[in-house]
Amino acid sequence: MKVLVTGALGVNGVWVCRRLVDEGHTVIALDRSDDSSVLGSAKDRVELIKANVTDYETVGKIVKDVAPDRIVHFAAILHSGCVASPVQAMHVNVNGTLSVLEAARAQSIPRVVYASSLGVYDAFTGRFGYPQYEPVTEDYPRGPMPGIEVYGASKLLCEALGTRYHKADGIQFVALRFAHILTPGRSGRQTGSAPDATIIDPALRGNVVDVSGGDESADFIYVKDLAHAVVCAVEAPGDPSGAYNIGSGSLATLRDIADAVCQIVPAADITVGPGLNFLGLEGTYARFAIEKARASLQFEPQYDLREAVADYVVETRADLVGGRAK
Amino acid sequence: MKVLVTGALGVNGVWVCRRLVDEGHTVIALDRSDDSSVLGSAKDRVELIKANVTDYETVGKIVKDVAPDRIVHFAAILHSGCVASPVQAMHVNVNGTLSVLEAARAQSIPRVVYASSLGVYDAFTGRFGYPQYEPVTEDYPRGPMPGIEVYGASKLLCEALGTRYHKADGIQFVALRFAHILTPGRSGRQTGSAPDATIIDPALRGNVVDVSGGDESADFIYVKDLAHAVVCAVEAPGDPSGAYNIGSGSLATLRDIADAVCQIVPAADITVGPGLNFLGLEGTYARFAIEKARASLQFEPQYDLREAVADYVVETRADLVGGRAK
Repeated sequence: MKVLVTGALGVNGVWVCRRLVDEGHTVIALDRSDDSSVLGSAKDRVELIKANVTDYETVGKIVKDVAPDRIVHFAAILHSGCVASPVQAMHVNVNGTLSVLEAARAQSIPRVVYASSLGVYDAFTGRFGYPQYEPVTEDYPRGPMPGIEVYGASKLLCEALGTRYHKADGIQFVALRFAHILTPGRSGRQTGSAPDATIIDPALRGNVVDVSGGDESADFIYVKDLAHAVVCAVEAPGDPSGAYNIGSGSLATLRDIADAVCQIVPAADITVGPGLNFLGLEGTYARFAIEKARASLQFEPQYDLREAVADYVVETRADLVGGRAK
Repeated sequence: MKVLVTGALGVNGVWVCRRLVDEGHTVIALDRSDDSSVLGSAKDRVELIKANVTDYETVGKIVKDVAPDRIVHFAAILHSGCVASPVQAMHVNVNGTLSVLEAARAQSIPRVVYASSLGVYDAFTGRFGYPQYEPVTEDYPRGPMPGIEVYGASKLLCEALGTRYHKADGIQFVALRFAHILTPGRSGRQTGSAPDATIIDPALRGNVVDVSGGDESADFIYVKDLAHAVVCAVEAPGDPSGAYNIGSGSLATLRDIADAVCQIVPAADITVGPGLNFLGLEGTYARFAIEKARASLQFEPQYDLREAVADYVVETRADLVGGRAK
């Protein structure tokens, strides 16, 4: 299929493009940047269009010219940006989504796949938080998630907007609510306290790592499984419109991540102290129930934590050799 | 105090302007319309500025020139408009709110009072719906409300944005979550199935009224109590930032409304049949707990249902005499 991917050069978008290409799809990457080097091995197999997703006219013209079978909409500003520059961030997160939906409507594009987030949920507390972590299904109370309210609320609004275009204009709208993500290549591109940036990357660079929060568990999805979920949403037959949790379906602690790193890199010097809330985002720790995505999108995670970390290390070293990683 | 009111000529905004003026405040009304006749008796006591609330530059200039003590932000597109024209509606609901918040930040306006809605909540079900209607407090799970998702999500997002400006820039942000509203003058200006338009107005025009849904109860706030709540939020000492339910705190059925109309207009011919969900918006019926507004804003509803309907009739007849009502 022909797939237009927005935010295609983002830290997760690049893995989506790679996977789509590997699966034989024709990928047209839309991004405000034109540094296609971040696409790595997919660089020469993806058509890149530099454009601002908030520009209704330009997006409309691109979608008309490209006439994709699917639009995968990843362009978004993360919470830190939402707090720092709310006007610009809402322009991207809300108007950017509307420009995609409007273009899809105008050109009768059959399906839009939307990158949503655990941020649409209310805090995972009580039996859904430490230490029980009962699986969170898609009907868990919506938020926005405390601590990332603006980001989460923008995702909630866009899910509602997508549903409106589904009902009113017949565009299939699939929202993928991602759990915490492990992404090779995040360091140097995004700030934050994700364990890829705070544990794995520094350890691979030979730094001493000493972090706390080792008692908390979370559902970490490896970005290649995230990309796999996008492919599933792109390819799913019928009308899979709706919202889906996309996680690993299992739990891991920072200690588990550290152990996995030490298995691959025995010299790694990682100390994980006790405590909770290693991200500084209380209430975001949960195990995602992924049965809905399994049943309706035929999504099945392909990496357990050890496999994910092992692959992460391979990808990061490949990047280091290639000179891309910071 | 000097109060800038956006959406000032809207069906609820006009009553806010009137009440603010009556309480001795200086009101600067901002609206995209310049038909100040809808302000009725307050017409000559309000300064009207015709402007588009989504225009950052213009709003910034107005706020700088006016230098208000408070901004009361009512400009918004209702759910029907959100569904019909999502791009335009989100421009007003999201960018319009951001332009107000940005102007408040730039000019260090101490407080913004925001017109929020029951739409920010999830459906009122179980013991919070028919027939128990246990009071809904502000920590009830957030939505957006099914059936009005886009509108509700835009209100949720704006509450999150306001909270961001409160935390980051020190602007006090008071969100008033209104229950179902009874507003004289709605007919002919808004479509919808609110009982003022479906029962009271037709009965006052001498029409035979035959509606169903008489078994459902709801918390109806009379628009003069809504305006009173805004005045309370404008005048409250200290920093009352936060979200507040604004309702009557009690329940009424369509039958109660019909009875109240018949007390004033004995000739009214109103039949209220059985059933639920008279608005066609399942899950929106609840009793609002208003203790938080009572405690922190010194808000106390001044009209019970009979008094509200009686006053409604007086206001509508005054308007009919004045030739404004359709």
